[in-house]
Amino acid sequence: MADEYDYHKMWGDLGMDVEAHDGLLGVVGEMYQTMFLTQKNRPASTSYLDGVAANLHSGRIREMVDGRSEGNPKKIIGSFCLYVPEEVVTAAGAVEVGLCAGAEWAPEDAERYVPRNTCPLIKGFMGFKLGRVCPYIESADLVVGENTCDGKKKAYEQFSKLKPMYIMDVPHVRNDDTKLQWRHQVHALAARIEEETGQKITEESLRAAIKLANDKRRALQRLSATRAADPVPISGLDCLLTVQAAFMDDSARLTGAINQMADECEKRAAEGIGAAPKGAKRILYTGTPMAVPNWKLFNIIEKAGGVVVGEECCTGSRYYKDLVPEDGATVDEMLDDIADRYLNIQCAIFTPNQGRRDDVIRMARELHADGIIDASLSFCTIYEMEAFDMEKAAQEAGIPYMHLSTDYSAEGDGQLTTRIQAFLEMI
Amino acid sequence: MADEYDYHKMWGDLGMDVEAHDGLLGVVGEMYQTMFLTQKNRPASTSYLDGVAANLHSGRIREMVDGRSEGNPKKIIGSFCLYVPEEVVTAAGAVEVGLCAGAEWAPEDAERYVPRNTCPLIKGFMGFKLGRVCPYIESADLVVGENTCDGKKKAYEQFSKLKPMYIMDVPHVRNDDTKLQWRHQVHALAARIEEETGQKITEESLRAAIKLANDKRRALQRLSATRAADPVPISGLDCLLTVQAAFMDDSARLTGAINQMADECEKRAAEGIGAAPKGAKRILYTGTPMAVPNWKLFNIIEKAGGVVVGEECCTGSRYYKDLVPEDGATVDEMLDDIADRYLNIQCAIFTPNQGRRDDVIRMARELHADGIIDASLSFCTIYEMEAFDMEKAAQEAGIPYMHLSTDYSAEGDGQLTTRIQAFLEMI
Repeated sequence: MADEYDYHKMWGDLGMDVEAHDGLLGVVGEMYQTMFLTQKNRPASTSYLDGVAANLHSGRIREMVDGRSEGNPKKIIGSFCLYVPEEVVTAAGAVEVGLCAGAEWAPEDAERYVPRNTCPLIKGFMGFKLGRVCPYIESADLVVGENTCDGKKKAYEQFSKLKPMYIMDVPHVRNDDTKLQWRHQVHALAARIEEETGQKITEESLRAAIKLANDKRRALQRLSATRAADPVPISGLDCLLTVQAAFMDDSARLTGAINQMADECEKRAAEGIGAAPKGAKRILYTGTPMAVPNWKLFNIIEKAGGVVVGEECCTGSRYYKDLVPEDGATVDEMLDDIADRYLNIQCAIFTPNQGRRDDVIRMARELHADGIIDASLSFCTIYEMEAFDMEKAAQEAGIPYMHLSTDYSAEGDGQLTTRIQAFLEMI
Repeated sequence: MADEYDYHKMWGDLGMDVEAHDGLLGVVGEMYQTMFLTQKNRPASTSYLDGVAANLHSGRIREMVDGRSEGNPKKIIGSFCLYVPEEVVTAAGAVEVGLCAGAEWAPEDAERYVPRNTCPLIKGFMGFKLGRVCPYIESADLVVGENTCDGKKKAYEQFSKLKPMYIMDVPHVRNDDTKLQWRHQVHALAARIEEETGQKITEESLRAAIKLANDKRRALQRLSATRAADPVPISGLDCLLTVQAAFMDDSARLTGAINQMADECEKRAAEGIGAAPKGAKRILYTGTPMAVPNWKLFNIIEKAGGVVVGEECCTGSRYYKDLVPEDGATVDEMLDDIADRYLNIQCAIFTPNQGRRDDVIRMARELHADGIIDASLSFCTIYEMEAFDMEKAAQEAGIPYMHLSTDYSAEGDGQLTTRIQAFLEMI
């Protein structure tokens, strides 16, 4: 399909390193080809995902950036975390996008700002910025960070030297004080985004934004439910990409596409049509989030004959399992409802965090998982630490469990594959 | 000096591994001999420190534990952090002690609870507990943890399986909400300690406890001020041990001893008598805390001909630089004053944390430091991250700076010594 728009000019105008970026696109395109397009028996409706992937750095940026030059100054708000409520951003007339953090880029540059032994996600976003190869970072008017883990909290002090940032303070325990504190943080974010866009958040705009986000979550919940079937109608790779797409794609359009995928998968489930053979070993994933193009673990699992049937993580169920009440009467009430919904995300920064383990066991049972794979990005203290109790919870539930630690390089992939194959054979 | 008290019986009664503990005492005693007792021109008053060191696991435990068996149920409250206010513990009739975390012990056991690549301080306290070689941990009735860094926050979830724990939630930003939240945390701690001791905190007891802690801080401030002199009247090693002792020793007795050290050091400063030669390269230390017996860095610096003239860290100036107001009228007001004083500790968990850099530069100037050595324990994300801006602050101030990363093993000591020698020659 010919696309005559000059994307190289667009990237150049955004201040990107166009040549390096071409290299990045080449590598990611090849990965996509190898990992996604070689899958057998994909639902036809996943063709939408192929379009998302193809347009991620081109068409999607164009529609956001072009929109702005036509007298519609739609602001772009970047974030790195589930904790930044998209409803607030949408209601103030801006668009929230997830920023690049899923690959290693310019690590030597990143190490001028953060230590060598930093988690690859953090080192990734520093490198993407310093190497100027992420059109989301470059086009963002404001980046909203959040004090979650020590690494991000401190890295934002560095990133804010490179981009305008606003930081939300996320509590690490749940009690009356921190609930109030977090509500204040969400109200303050609303004021900051209003200031950025020059547009007031109204009852109507906020109610519509809540509905928009909930509709996307409901669609994802529908899709997720179909994965309880054996054979499973859709691969873990495609479901991971669906949630990853939710951080970048137009919300209403994507919701339509997810509902089509859910329609098709419900039909396939009823008819016994699978993306993996009936009886394939079913894996519940839990652990650190996976930003585009961090697909390798799911690819290894599924190429080895397993199939991922659920994801208890920020690029999985945490993104869509809880809705925001739609009956808030005032802006303040709705902002409080939003805050309360987000405070309930079972991030490993919280202590205690029994809720995450409960979710994992519940999901493993609902989705008939044969085993749990719990993976941490290297140097991710909180997930590495939680793995000890996660293993115990899995043992108590009688579900086979494996913990992995991995980064973005391909160096350890051989060993990873061997361990995963052994786990699939064992369960 | 013969001491007929049966310490082996005491340690056994505490549930300790007496044989392993004998081994530990042997190693630490040897370290003390090599590092402290070989120092030349020590102030005579430091003999008190030798007594503290000799009695750390014996006499001091005996006086705390014996006190309890004679109908005086004085409770022992353990902690791992400056953020647990000793005034509150003292005022409720208990004694707060710092727990062992300054050496590697039983690392294989610790790795059943925390990841291998955990900061040595955390791995240390897990190992000390699992190996049953810390009489402070074993005699503590309650351990008060604090949500500071990710590693400790999550490790306490494990430690609380081994010891009764109470956790304080420490904010990571300073604003009106977190000030209130932290005040509530301090009030809640007071209630919890009262419950533990069965003793109410009164205006009188709290006022006296504030004065007791302030007196210790004032004594340490006096001692610290003498270190601006050239030659410096006392070594960094002895000053580090003085603050380390403050976490374990009887407060009033130690304060008396520190004031004697300050008296002597003021006199030495006036007379030009030094623990190091005039003109010795003067180092300001900043970085992670150093728990007993983690003396190696100071030992390397001072054996190489440098001298540490100040410590911007939790086992240094942060411990004593700020007082609690002594004019609080009610228990509530005094608890708020205590909370506010502690919230001002410039721990690297805070963001932003410009105050720490300001303190370092101020101290370097006041104490006429020739260079700054900023050291992080391995895998300590927050201090590793802050080193980048610390280096810039030092550059801007025109003060030579070096960052080191180190753990409790002796493995890298040769390289460390070489780097420190080179730094001392360069400045």
